[in-house]
Amino acid sequence: MLARLVAGPLSERAGPLRIHRRVLRVAGRTESHVEESIKPAYERWRAARLPLETTILAAPGQIELHLTAEAADPDEGRAILAAAERDLLAILGRAVFSTDGRSLEEVVVDRLRERRIRIALAESCTGGLATSRLTDVPGSSASLEMSVVCYSNRAKQELLGIAPELIAAHGAVSEPVAAAMARAVRDRAGVEIGVGVTGIAGPSGGSERKPVGTVAVAVSTATTEVVRTFQVPGGRQQVKFQASQLALDLVRRVLEDGG
Amino acid sequence: MLARLVAGPLSERAGPLRIHRRVLRVAGRTESHVEESIKPAYERWRAARLPLETTILAAPGQIELHLTAEAADPDEGRAILAAAERDLLAILGRAVFSTDGRSLEEVVVDRLRERRIRIALAESCTGGLATSRLTDVPGSSASLEMSVVCYSNRAKQELLGIAPELIAAHGAVSEPVAAAMARAVRDRAGVEIGVGVTGIAGPSGGSERKPVGTVAVAVSTATTEVVRTFQVPGGRQQVKFQASQLALDLVRRVLEDGG
Repeated sequence: MLARLVAGPLSERAGPLRIHRRVLRVAGRTESHVEESIKPAYERWRAARLPLETTILAAPGQIELHLTAEAADPDEGRAILAAAERDLLAILGRAVFSTDGRSLEEVVVDRLRERRIRIALAESCTGGLATSRLTDVPGSSASLEMSVVCYSNRAKQELLGIAPELIAAHGAVSEPVAAAMARAVRDRAGVEIGVGVTGIAGPSGGSERKPVGTVAVAVSTATTEVVRTFQVPGGRQQVKFQASQLALDLVRRVLEDGG
Repeated sequence: MLARLVAGPLSERAGPLRIHRRVLRVAGRTESHVEESIKPAYERWRAARLPLETTILAAPGQIELHLTAEAADPDEGRAILAAAERDLLAILGRAVFSTDGRSLEEVVVDRLRERRIRIALAESCTGGLATSRLTDVPGSSASLEMSVVCYSNRAKQELLGIAPELIAAHGAVSEPVAAAMARAVRDRAGVEIGVGVTGIAGPSGGSERKPVGTVAVAVSTATTEVVRTFQVPGGRQQVKFQASQLALDLVRRVLEDGG
């Protein structure tokens, strides 16, 4: 769960060295994918003998790249980090959700606030966790209109008007139901963006076609609808967290450039 | 945040000693209250030179009493722990929610399941956290019908039919509104028990009369309605957690003996 890449010897240079740090946070990528894809950048840094260390930290639903540069001149340290960040952003693109220490929920709330957009969520397998994470952020009340946790099919019907036929045809954990939840809660709340999350958190409820960890996430706006299905590993609480992460990240992507 | 009470010398006795442990979890009490109130028991244990150590661990919304007994004979160790547990239960009563390691949400879900009772929640300041904690427990879907997170007054009205006049008269953070939320969500979901939580999580939104940390919690059943107001310390996430803890604990108390 932790890989450390040292581009150049940190202690070879003269003068009192200062440590400069930056953390890039990545969603929707596995640790091995991130490690593999940044290797070319890391090889270049090593060839250039940059006094730079990269540590990859993997948490459920999130990869962190910790960059540490050592330089006597603060400007040099900052320049090394800025160049490394540019290299990594060129490789990882919009999978990087934060370069300044903000959590995914903070980034989403900031984006909503900047664009004066209000959000509503319909959560099934996440059981309120996605909404709870958003409401961890101070000031989120300005952007969050409401959420519903519709665990039972009856609740999906009663609160959101999801047709039983739709659930019968596709299953409660399906892209059509996630999309219908996102549309319905957006409509119900009278807001610009709606989110639907449905999945199988386990330990029971899985099947061969839809095993535990199957998650369908949808984001609906007046002009776009994005639906994705994921397969996430882990126990019940990990599946819940990763499903909330995938939902928040899809919101971020839609807010940034339409999905 | 941690106090250790040693009743008797643990290493004085002969023979290969075995360690026996038990954890009592307490809700709705402060650390100093727990420490003060168990002192008489601890003095008795010390007088009896019981090979018993008690560690008090305080977390937000929860106090843990870790009991450790040393005895060569396993039966003796178990008997010491059982006697200590009886003493502590006699003092702390129903504030103790678990003596077997279960979390508060596990205890609540177990109680609901045993009594085949379904629950629905209306959350404001907790932002879905109380529901998320319940859904952390495997099998909770059998007991949880639905929840609504009604952050805005408009959502309280639209989802639960809370009269704007009631909010205008008492404020959104008030016992009448918490009780109305509990009743409305119970009615809406068609279940036996409804919960309403409203409060001021901060950092803004507080006033002299209702400072940050003011939390009103209500539990409604067909035969009883219990409403409580609390003042909890800490930052936004601590207030959220403690408010969820107070709500879950009130549910437990109502399930155990009507409140």
